[in-house]
Amino acid sequence: MIPTFSHRINQDSSSLDELFKLSAQANKISFAGGYPDPNLFPKDELKRAFEKRINDESNDLFQYRTVTGYEPLRQKIASSTKKMGFDCSSEEIMLTQGAQQGIKLLSSLFLDDHDGIAVEAPTYVGALEAFNEHLPKYYEIPMEKDGMDLETLENTLQHNKIKIIYTIPNFQNPTGYCMSTIKRKRLAALAAKYQAVVIEDDPYRELRYEGSALPAIKSFDRTGNVITLGSFSKILSPALRCGWLIASPEIVKQLSSLRLSYDCQSSNVLLESIDQYLGENSIEKHIDHLRRAYRLKMQTMLTCLEDELPTDCSFSHPQGGFFIWVTLPQGCDAAILLKQTNIVTFLEGSSLFANSSPKNYIRLNFTGVSLSEIKKGCADLGEAIKYSLVNQFAI
Amino acid sequence: MIPTFSHRINQDSSSLDELFKLSAQANKISFAGGYPDPNLFPKDELKRAFEKRINDESNDLFQYRTVTGYEPLRQKIASSTKKMGFDCSSEEIMLTQGAQQGIKLLSSLFLDDHDGIAVEAPTYVGALEAFNEHLPKYYEIPMEKDGMDLETLENTLQHNKIKIIYTIPNFQNPTGYCMSTIKRKRLAALAAKYQAVVIEDDPYRELRYEGSALPAIKSFDRTGNVITLGSFSKILSPALRCGWLIASPEIVKQLSSLRLSYDCQSSNVLLESIDQYLGENSIEKHIDHLRRAYRLKMQTMLTCLEDELPTDCSFSHPQGGFFIWVTLPQGCDAAILLKQTNIVTFLEGSSLFANSSPKNYIRLNFTGVSLSEIKKGCADLGEAIKYSLVNQFAI
Repeated sequence: MIPTFSHRINQDSSSLDELFKLSAQANKISFAGGYPDPNLFPKDELKRAFEKRINDESNDLFQYRTVTGYEPLRQKIASSTKKMGFDCSSEEIMLTQGAQQGIKLLSSLFLDDHDGIAVEAPTYVGALEAFNEHLPKYYEIPMEKDGMDLETLENTLQHNKIKIIYTIPNFQNPTGYCMSTIKRKRLAALAAKYQAVVIEDDPYRELRYEGSALPAIKSFDRTGNVITLGSFSKILSPALRCGWLIASPEIVKQLSSLRLSYDCQSSNVLLESIDQYLGENSIEKHIDHLRRAYRLKMQTMLTCLEDELPTDCSFSHPQGGFFIWVTLPQGCDAAILLKQTNIVTFLEGSSLFANSSPKNYIRLNFTGVSLSEIKKGCADLGEAIKYSLVNQFAI
Repeated sequence: MIPTFSHRINQDSSSLDELFKLSAQANKISFAGGYPDPNLFPKDELKRAFEKRINDESNDLFQYRTVTGYEPLRQKIASSTKKMGFDCSSEEIMLTQGAQQGIKLLSSLFLDDHDGIAVEAPTYVGALEAFNEHLPKYYEIPMEKDGMDLETLENTLQHNKIKIIYTIPNFQNPTGYCMSTIKRKRLAALAAKYQAVVIEDDPYRELRYEGSALPAIKSFDRTGNVITLGSFSKILSPALRCGWLIASPEIVKQLSSLRLSYDCQSSNVLLESIDQYLGENSIEKHIDHLRRAYRLKMQTMLTCLEDELPTDCSFSHPQGGFFIWVTLPQGCDAAILLKQTNIVTFLEGSSLFANSSPKNYIRLNFTGVSLSEIKKGCADLGEAIKYSLVNQFAI
């Protein structure tokens, strides 16, 4: 007999786990995952970058390095924050194993059991799963088209002790909504006033297909309360496992100690190869290419949804990112719908809320599928919803 | 003002952090770290492996993959356990970000606050730092030349609730001692009887320079209580960040859910390149090469210590691994000694004990330094100890 698991462990299968399984179902069109289009990876450029670093004899590429990660790469990221509206130095940056690790490390650094966390409703399930180990008390802040509802947030901050406010300001996962500049500014001020940490999770920032980039929440931060996470997963490749975290040097130092006990450090082979890629190529040009391709996919999905879904469905019209958020007609249950589709899979919205679990939402990804899959998948989805409505009224 | 850190966080600089700093001091000969010799990395073979996978057009190398890691690599590791005395399948294996991540994930899976953990005294500081976040109650089990003292362990198990027994059976870090077969068998039986998990941390197994390999503790496990960790860090390269964990499929499944919230998955680029390396090369032949080189370094350090240290010093005579453990004369303080050396750095032993902090031990690494550095460093160390003894008596 082995001992029991920690009481922190939820022994039900995790939602992220289910998501990866849904995404991998053979013979299905998957709108479920959050995968980039593998045909858009800059493979040739990445190959050259790897080859160059691997063949550089002057370099101990394969040895242990520092916990914060390859300094020249941190410098490149630091100089890229100007366009987000703030200055930062490489000591304010730690390279992480994807942005996910940033969320986990920050949870461990700040959370005591049962601490309050304000999260958007709905939100990214991987963040909830990272927080869950700390048995938090969640406060759901409703999403609006211009970002989280700050009236509810301020009311929550006034009446409860909130340690962390978790937000995805750009093209939010799952709604696709973007927080307005005025809300960003006010959110930074609220965090300072109520002494909460804002985790600004920003993996989709560069993937804007319409409109102009907005300043980061961190650009309005005067007190060090805002910590920004970024990632190469969506703009270069997820298999590079490289994200970053921007915080004060004191917080980076404390996170470094913690990180050593989690996994020591990122792979120097990967970090130096990314640095080589960035030195040799224009990532802006690559991102432009991504934007064009993903814009077309998004527009195609929006058009198909307009054509195929019953009129009592509504859906978000994002300006970027990976996802469209669909509100099903009242009484339509996403879990049942998932069984009624023939070829398409998607993510039920119920697992994306911290406390509630409304049944009539689904999240659709458009980046990981082809244009023809988008068309076929939306038609299948539309039929299934119509069938489900008829069926509902038949009962 | 940002909120306070979790009460779990030790705000003193971590020992691992200190260790990396010590190892990186310029103009010093470092016996401090646990670095492999970068001249022994199979660079050409690794280069070819990377190039081959990166150039395989049929493959989505750069996409997200499964959380447990590249299946063919898990199969190769599974078939290598026969020589450790047990069979296992790929479902019993999860690839981790170094063996360190295995320790961290197992801590999170099993530990509730203040749970009992039995650790060797001294032990690996990175394990202590991973456990510390769970505020454990430590029980120190003294190290003997043939492995941890099982009388003390059984007595501890009888009188206390112990969740985890953490051991490094082969060429223990820091003592270099190796657990005897008879103790391995008895340890597995004790864990089953008292319902404790054994974490068998085994990164040095292949690096045996004398004598014959011993069966893994897991080979005596009939109840699933023993979980074995391995790593490519010491035998291929630490920058590949690839370790593995062998446990029952149920435990692997639960750890996978947890892992998703920590960092999603390992880099598929790295895992497939390692798989390619193993398919194209004889890692056994490479390890033979490492053994010859490291045996010579170890023997050189042992001879130098014999020649240079005062006779009231004693030190371990390992049969493999990375480290020699030195017992300084009574009254000699390792922290003061570290300031009295001119060119050599080493690791003070006091941070390597869970509860106590005896001052008269030091750990010396011989793999990361050259033969001439070993000679110079040992001479410097010998002089400093002699100086310190004279100084002590002068006071």
